[in-house]
Amino acid sequence: MKAELITIGDELLNGTTLNTNARWLCNRLVRIGIPVARIVTVGDVRADIVTALKHAVSRNEVVITTGGLGPTHDDVTKTAVAEFLGVPMVENTEVKEHILELFRSRNVPMPEVNLEQAQVPAGVQLIPNPIGTAPGFQFEKNRAICFVLPGVPAEMRAMMDAAVVPFLQTRFRDKLGVVLAEDIRTTGIFESRLFEKLEPISQIERWAHLAFLPHRSGVDLRLSVQAKSESEGRERLKKARTLILERIGPFVYEVGERSLETVVADLLFELKKTVAVAESCTAGLVSHLLTNVPGSSEYLLGGVVAYSNAVKQQVLGVSGKTLSTVGAVSEETAAEMANGVKHLIGTDFGLSTTGIAGPSGGTPEKPVGLVFVACAGPNGTEVRKFVFHRERLINKYRFAYAALNLLRTMLLSLKKD
Amino acid sequence: MKAELITIGDELLNGTTLNTNARWLCNRLVRIGIPVARIVTVGDVRADIVTALKHAVSRNEVVITTGGLGPTHDDVTKTAVAEFLGVPMVENTEVKEHILELFRSRNVPMPEVNLEQAQVPAGVQLIPNPIGTAPGFQFEKNRAICFVLPGVPAEMRAMMDAAVVPFLQTRFRDKLGVVLAEDIRTTGIFESRLFEKLEPISQIERWAHLAFLPHRSGVDLRLSVQAKSESEGRERLKKARTLILERIGPFVYEVGERSLETVVADLLFELKKTVAVAESCTAGLVSHLLTNVPGSSEYLLGGVVAYSNAVKQQVLGVSGKTLSTVGAVSEETAAEMANGVKHLIGTDFGLSTTGIAGPSGGTPEKPVGLVFVACAGPNGTEVRKFVFHRERLINKYRFAYAALNLLRTMLLSLKKD
Repeated sequence: MKAELITIGDELLNGTTLNTNARWLCNRLVRIGIPVARIVTVGDVRADIVTALKHAVSRNEVVITTGGLGPTHDDVTKTAVAEFLGVPMVENTEVKEHILELFRSRNVPMPEVNLEQAQVPAGVQLIPNPIGTAPGFQFEKNRAICFVLPGVPAEMRAMMDAAVVPFLQTRFRDKLGVVLAEDIRTTGIFESRLFEKLEPISQIERWAHLAFLPHRSGVDLRLSVQAKSESEGRERLKKARTLILERIGPFVYEVGERSLETVVADLLFELKKTVAVAESCTAGLVSHLLTNVPGSSEYLLGGVVAYSNAVKQQVLGVSGKTLSTVGAVSEETAAEMANGVKHLIGTDFGLSTTGIAGPSGGTPEKPVGLVFVACAGPNGTEVRKFVFHRERLINKYRFAYAALNLLRTMLLSLKKD
Repeated sequence: MKAELITIGDELLNGTTLNTNARWLCNRLVRIGIPVARIVTVGDVRADIVTALKHAVSRNEVVITTGGLGPTHDDVTKTAVAEFLGVPMVENTEVKEHILELFRSRNVPMPEVNLEQAQVPAGVQLIPNPIGTAPGFQFEKNRAICFVLPGVPAEMRAMMDAAVVPFLQTRFRDKLGVVLAEDIRTTGIFESRLFEKLEPISQIERWAHLAFLPHRSGVDLRLSVQAKSESEGRERLKKARTLILERIGPFVYEVGERSLETVVADLLFELKKTVAVAESCTAGLVSHLLTNVPGSSEYLLGGVVAYSNAVKQQVLGVSGKTLSTVGAVSEETAAEMANGVKHLIGTDFGLSTTGIAGPSGGTPEKPVGLVFVACAGPNGTEVRKFVFHRERLINKYRFAYAALNLLRTMLLSLKKD
């Protein structure tokens, strides 16, 4: 029981695009117990796609292709599949309706070329695309089942989760062992420090395989087990998880899949609290992250991007004396910004950031990477100081997540009260 | 003249590691005029490596493998090559000396397993590893030349630059042309509409290959040519570019590599103008993008995230009548927000967004994806309306880039005055 991926697109061969689809698909398939034996990447060249399909179906039970389903001349995957299957292209009225409807709902005229996307190889079974115009489809050949998906990551992922994965789990129910995985998500601690605190790793790996996955928001610890039964797998995950939480509990914001912003949002929903954000160095990023969660208007009322000192003073009410004595990047300014925005917008919590994102602007006392984050809440104000990185964009994310994590801990202590 | 890559390693198939080596190698080869036709990824499985080698040498003049040269039990690339070539493994004294010397210089005892690395297939030509213990090597088969390199990125890259690239350039001096590429970056137009406007594509492709690359910020048109000389290549790029700019000029914000936010930043720097942002639906994202450019504090003074109507009224001065008659998502509100934030922060430009990011909150008159962006400048206020997508995060980016593009056009017309 093995899968092969065929990732299609000139951009994957000319050195511009990183093949993130391949990694995502491997991850998704491995989690449901289907190992990937091979990945083939070819360009938008019909003959190369046909050859890759021929080899893939002769070797594997599952084949997934991505890419080459767009409306333009360089997208040839569909016609390659038709050639491979020896069938003509036919118009699919269901797809045609979906495309017409998409453009109707946007109230914009539809370019003729989009109707090209209603053409599919005869006899294939459609996979709806909930997000875009390019439909996917599946077919069987040589005892292999093949899924043809678009290359746009959001569309491909949505179709995998909604259609392909459930289909495979039903179809191969008896063959698939149980593969269980669990993410223990941490923030505010470097990967190497985390590793040190978790030593001896072999004790944890007696129960489950452990991988370190660094993200912008922190480091995920991925536990995975392949087991004979679900209950055995769950038991082993639990044993490994317990060892990990004993050692690094305070850095864990989630056991599961929620992002830090979603964890914070869920706490705000639960406690019915509101927040406003005053951002200097992160310049809107904290608000952006907090509003990526649907329904965020219930808890985020607004905020101020206070990039200049004048805005800090005039809009947020930071005192001129604070700015002239300890400066904009200081514990005091962070605290005054958090209280200022809380007062201005009239929320339960005020959250703030002030720091030096870089690449320049640092001094020996206040280096690039230095940030103060503050949170003013019903029970007072807390400020934390961190020194992160040298790179501007990484710093902005680290700063923003440090602020969100401070808000999380203050919400948690409110919950415990 | 084509190359094939074989990237080897279980970590590339189990969903943990992104194949950055493949992209780097493609980029390096394309730059010296050798297109990559195919990438195959297999695990650390001897039979799979042998099969991949067989296919690769039958199709291409250059084959490069990476990975599987380490000292541990799961590294099998060398023995796979020996099997493929039908030769025994032999100890190479040069490699042995190199390894012993490495450990001597680090002053650490050498694990016995490292001596395993002195074993190579008989008859191959060594490629020194300036960084690590795993040597690479090359051999010829079926008129193809094969390079076997380690998977550690720093080691692989060093060996490519020091040995493989110079070898290829010498060996294929007469065959290699010049490869040139150029990006024409567009925003505010769907890929399919762009395609229609560029028809007939064949006219453009007489001069250069054209690919469509969609991003969050818009669609890039990548022109590429393979030519005999640099001047011929530049001439062909210019002809293709001219045809494209005639047809879609107004949607192009950059010929080159700059992002939309960098183009806007460069105009602000040049004109010495300042901007403030009032964001409803984008909730800080526009400010975040504008401050990803180093030195942004020169032009971005601040902004307001006006998520609730109360903030729109009390902080930005949007009139209650506007909100109660035409609503928060309207041309009027967008214009008042832009003027309000310009006035509040005291800048040359005020930029605003108000819309419905989704997934819920839409109505037949105001669907999910609807946005108004406004820009108040020295010569008045402009508002634009768009209907984009159904997906929240994609919408936020589309909204933000629509706002940045409006600011760009207003800065351009100021420049022309």
